[in-house]
Amino acid sequence: MGVASKKFGIAVLSFQVVFLVLFALLTTYDSEADARYPGNSLDPDKNGTDPERNSIAKYYPMFQDVHVMIFIGFGFLMTFLKRYGFGAVGLNFLIAAFVLQWAILFHAILHAAHADFAAAAVLISFGALLGKTSPLQLLIMAFIEIMIFSLNEWIGLTIFKAVDVGGSMFVHVFGAYFGLSAARVLYNPEIDKSSKEGSIYHSDIFAMIGTVFLWMYWPSFNSAVAAAGDDQHRAVINTYLALAACCIVTFAISSLTDKDAKFDMVHVQNATLAGGVAVGTSADMMIQPFGAVLIGCIAAVLSTVGYKYITPGLNIKLKIHDTCGVNNLHGMPGLLAGICGTIAAWFASVNTYGYSLYQTFPARAPLANSTSLHKIQTVLSIEPGDGRSASTQAMYQAIALVVTFFVACTAGALTGLLLRLSIFDGPRKYSRLFEDTLWWG
Amino acid sequence: MGVASKKFGIAVLSFQVVFLVLFALLTTYDSEADARYPGNSLDPDKNGTDPERNSIAKYYPMFQDVHVMIFIGFGFLMTFLKRYGFGAVGLNFLIAAFVLQWAILFHAILHAAHADFAAAAVLISFGALLGKTSPLQLLIMAFIEIMIFSLNEWIGLTIFKAVDVGGSMFVHVFGAYFGLSAARVLYNPEIDKSSKEGSIYHSDIFAMIGTVFLWMYWPSFNSAVAAAGDDQHRAVINTYLALAACCIVTFAISSLTDKDAKFDMVHVQNATLAGGVAVGTSADMMIQPFGAVLIGCIAAVLSTVGYKYITPGLNIKLKIHDTCGVNNLHGMPGLLAGICGTIAAWFASVNTYGYSLYQTFPARAPLANSTSLHKIQTVLSIEPGDGRSASTQAMYQAIALVVTFFVACTAGALTGLLLRLSIFDGPRKYSRLFEDTLWWG
Amino acid sequence: MGVASKKFGIAVLSFQVVFLVLFALLTTYDSEADARYPGNSLDPDKNGTDPERNSIAKYYPMFQDVHVMIFIGFGFLMTFLKRYGFGAVGLNFLIAAFVLQWAILFHAILHAAHADFAAAAVLISFGALLGKTSPLQLLIMAFIEIMIFSLNEWIGLTIFKAVDVGGSMFVHVFGAYFGLSAARVLYNPEIDKSSKEGSIYHSDIFAMIGTVFLWMYWPSFNSAVAAAGDDQHRAVINTYLALAACCIVTFAISSLTDKDAKFDMVHVQNATLAGGVAVGTSADMMIQPFGAVLIGCIAAVLSTVGYKYITPGLNIKLKIHDTCGVNNLHGMPGLLAGICGTIAAWFASVNTYGYSLYQTFPARAPLANSTSLHKIQTVLSIEPGDGRSASTQAMYQAIALVVTFFVACTAGALTGLLLRLSIFDGPRKYSRLFEDTLWWG
Repeated sequence: MGVASKKFGIAVLSFQVVFLVLFALLTTYDSEADARYPGNSLDPDKNGTDPERNSIAKYYPMFQDVHVMIFIGFGFLMTFLKRYGFGAVGLNFLIAAFVLQWAILFHAILHAAHADFAAAAVLISFGALLGKTSPLQLLIMAFIEIMIFSLNEWIGLTIFKAVDVGGSMFVHVFGAYFGLSAARVLYNPEIDKSSKEGSIYHSDIFAMIGTVFLWMYWPSFNSAVAAAGDDQHRAVINTYLALAACCIVTFAISSLTDKDAKFDMVHVQNATLAGGVAVGTSADMMIQPFGAVLIGCIAAVLSTVGYKYITPGLNIKLKIHDTCGVNNLHGMPGLLAGICGTIAAWFASVNTYGYSLYQTFPARAPLANSTSLHKIQTVLSIEPGDGRSASTQAMYQAIALVVTFFVACTAGALTGLLLRLSIFDGPRKYSRLFEDTLWWG
Repeated sequence: MGVASKKFGIAVLSFQVVFLVLFALLTTYDSEADARYPGNSLDPDKNGTDPERNSIAKYYPMFQDVHVMIFIGFGFLMTFLKRYGFGAVGLNFLIAAFVLQWAILFHAILHAAHADFAAAAVLISFGALLGKTSPLQLLIMAFIEIMIFSLNEWIGLTIFKAVDVGGSMFVHVFGAYFGLSAARVLYNPEIDKSSKEGSIYHSDIFAMIGTVFLWMYWPSFNSAVAAAGDDQHRAVINTYLALAACCIVTFAISSLTDKDAKFDMVHVQNATLAGGVAVGTSADMMIQPFGAVLIGCIAAVLSTVGYKYITPGLNIKLKIHDTCGVNNLHGMPGLLAGICGTIAAWFASVNTYGYSLYQTFPARAPLANSTSLHKIQTVLSIEPGDGRSASTQAMYQAIALVVTFFVACTAGALTGLLLRLSIFDGPRKYSRLFEDTLWWG
Repeated sequence: MGVASKKFGIAVLSFQVVFLVLFALLTTYDSEADARYPGNSLDPDKNGTDPERNSIAKYYPMFQDVHVMIFIGFGFLMTFLKRYGFGAVGLNFLIAAFVLQWAILFHAILHAAHADFAAAAVLISFGALLGKTSPLQLLIMAFIEIMIFSLNEWIGLTIFKAVDVGGSMFVHVFGAYFGLSAARVLYNPEIDKSSKEGSIYHSDIFAMIGTVFLWMYWPSFNSAVAAAGDDQHRAVINTYLALAACCIVTFAISSLTDKDAKFDMVHVQNATLAGGVAVGTSADMMIQPFGAVLIGCIAAVLSTVGYKYITPGLNIKLKIHDTCGVNNLHGMPGLLAGICGTIAAWFASVNTYGYSLYQTFPARAPLANSTSLHKIQTVLSIEPGDGRSASTQAMYQAIALVVTFFVACTAGALTGLLLRLSIFDGPRKYSRLFEDTLWWG
């Protein structure tokens, strides 16, 4: 007991004061939310436009779905621990609200982050550490992780020109391996003495609230930033099919790997979602319905087997304790997503995509001033690209995946080292693990 | 104990392999999700269209609401049993994801199903059987039921040309009486020895999550497939009003029928929703606001009285044990919906609907090449119909209702007979009822 | 025991019969939901319009978000009491469904209410009285409160021409002080003898479902009735930022004001939302992102300090027992919202807003037939206003706030006096407080 300290409150208030100053210095309303913007004036002389065409109408419903995934989905999914429900939903709330502000501000500096996706990356890392850190450690981790996350995403999208519509590489792989590396560094050798790492009947049902909202709204996550029209439509369909297949295969594998042929609630809560991760990178590509179903099936097997056999192995052999099994839900399925995206990019052609190929893979558009570009521009207004071939694009997809993996591992480990400092109130004893009463009055 | 077997997992995997093959053979992206489709190319020479007009923007928010009803609504509504919460939300998840795939594939064969509505029918049947079957029995039932459901719906919509915007006949009546017939055949004479058929305090609150999400999003269910414009708008308003009236009348009847004037949580969880079922067939018709309120009031009385007096009677006298009381929430209110739809169709006229009469009731449009059709087509582009009178349309509405009822009863009973085979791991002892630990490790 | 009576059921049925008659006499479908309306006929000779432009598509997603806030948000937020979960979510459901109908009907008489907003006002008052009234008392209170609410809102919007896009004055201040005044009059001197006013572990997690849904969808609440386009967009952004800042500052203050630096679940459940209330009046104004963040920070401090110090003081010194602390979540943050709105109105100018100033503040538009109006109307179609200056508009904002406060206090106290009549089954003994078993069988 007595482990909580006022340092947390002082740190949060300091961050918030800095955020307030940065908001005042760096931000203003975008033209679509600015009353002064002539386009909003309805004045034909000033190119006024129909207010019904304001982008809020287009993005708001999917944005709200993603919002539900972040706050209800992640928050309740982690309530499965019998004595850490307040920490799960409460700290999820805190960290996500912190990240929303910091990611918006960092975006104003670097133009590479997207606040809710950024929050997802941090919450995935939180899943690996659930019940084992102080709130202050989480806050510091979130602060650092957002900067590295944004940098890595910027490199992937702008330098490598890789595409990743559902963020399976830049969000899921990054978040998972950042968190797992930090968990390795923060490993507590007494952890198996704790009797509190487990669920009770009702905590498992609370967790299902999270599972089901994540599962339902995952098509919004994978399609929210897709190009409007058929790309977005396809991202919804592919994700929906991958998830449906993943759900039922998870039940099958869960039963088949159990000696009494029973289902394991951990598998149902988590592995059913792996299809959404695994199809994330290729969700807007022409992978065909059966391709989406196939990816969902593979993800279910990979993830369920991961929970059954790999998580215990990582804990015992590599001293990586992964409370929520993020390696199985986000890590390995995210790697699978990156591989599927690489393969799908390899097979992408004008023959299959029409000219919308250049919308899905902007770097494949012909070079500026080239004859091919002029030919396309007579019928379709596109930006010039790098004139990449399919195999070049595929190669960059693979490079983005590998780089993301290594950046995440390195940055997570270094952040973990920082968090070991005693100044951050981290628990050091097994009696301080997976227990709300240390932090909640 | 020891009742679960590996047969379930093998069955699911076999189904999923077949589904995968069928997806590869039978499905491809619809034009609105196909990158190759010229209309998506933005190329004016190819009739390219505005990507903002892609149908995803129109249907997606309501589709997601229905999705929440299926997975959160049905799933949590059934968590009321004190020892069957995993089964409720978990098997609901499994069965719905199985049906989504199977209904999409069957649709590719017969063109008559709509995946989420199809899932609702199966989940209603599941409600009658909750806690009394093995997962394998449910899976087989879902597989069979979807085929009969699709066939019956196809007959109703295509042969009888009945209309049923909220699916109260084709989904609710069908699902309820299919499940009740199966429950009759699977009747366990020892059932009243079980001490586990009841709720505890927190399981009732979990169930309210399901109730409230179903109640809130029911207007989406009843209007999702309505014709765009005033039809859909009316379906929302009518459902909203019927539900509001149904909710408060349920509280009144629940208190008035109790000897201590107390509320019964079962009534509040279920009968409050009956108004949404009862207004389903006529939701897009010109029943006027007071008509919707009246239907909601009648449904509340019917459903609450059903829970109080009819469900115990069915169990004792007819050996039909109805765990969730689907007869009261879906069966009788669905029959009421069919009757209200018949009456509303009887009174429908061009005088009341304008030419949109032929949008709401396509079979009432004049015959091909008739003078009346040509006259209408000068101002409105409609398909030729059968030139039905109001009373003829009403008659077909009634026929569709009666046929649905008998098809459901017959098919449910035959399916129940099949499920009695011991190969399907069904529980035969009262100690195996309403108990998660048999199936969940 | 034995306190429930049949009077409740009879009262509800009587109300519902009256409602049914009033629906028949007073209501009909609006043109956008009326099949007969020529604009829906698609007939170009009758000015038929594109059904895709029907207003349902524009308002429905945000309307559904607000609906979730009312039924899930308010309902589950109040489940925190260990023995009053049925009352919280059940009576919330009853009262809201009652109000939806009554507010729609009253709107048909007075044209001033908006059903879901009206429900919010009553549910806020319910929060002050939670666990201390009979269902019949609540019903009577709702019936009366809606009339006063509608009248006050009508005075504010039509006479004072104040603006309040998120209803922070007309909904939150009104609902809170109406409920607190009623609570004062209904004060039970034995209340501190009750051992049931407290939470248990799982009831606090149920309450978090309410908190998080309210928090997520609050941007919809504050922007649902904003003018389409940049006004609505701005209302979403400002609310989102105020809430994000409010959340993390609440955690900070909660920890800093605790002797062991622990978080208090009551603060996390409630004070995190105060930013949404506090930014409500000015949400569509040009307060800039940093202004929204600042308002969120101040609201967090005000609300958390309120829960910690003011609520116990009100109970002991003023005999105002506030079960949910609505003074801290709705009352004081609502007053803050009114003050922020006054200040923002003071600084509003054509320079900052362009001509959309007259959309945000209609009374500031020039007088009919004035030269300035004609000049504006050459480029923008607006209604004539009162030609108010910024300071005049600010003054009316302040007047609306003060009038709302006093109307709410007076009407709440008078209603409380009425509810003291023994005919309404109100509990008089501490053993009848915060206990579901009195009302639920």
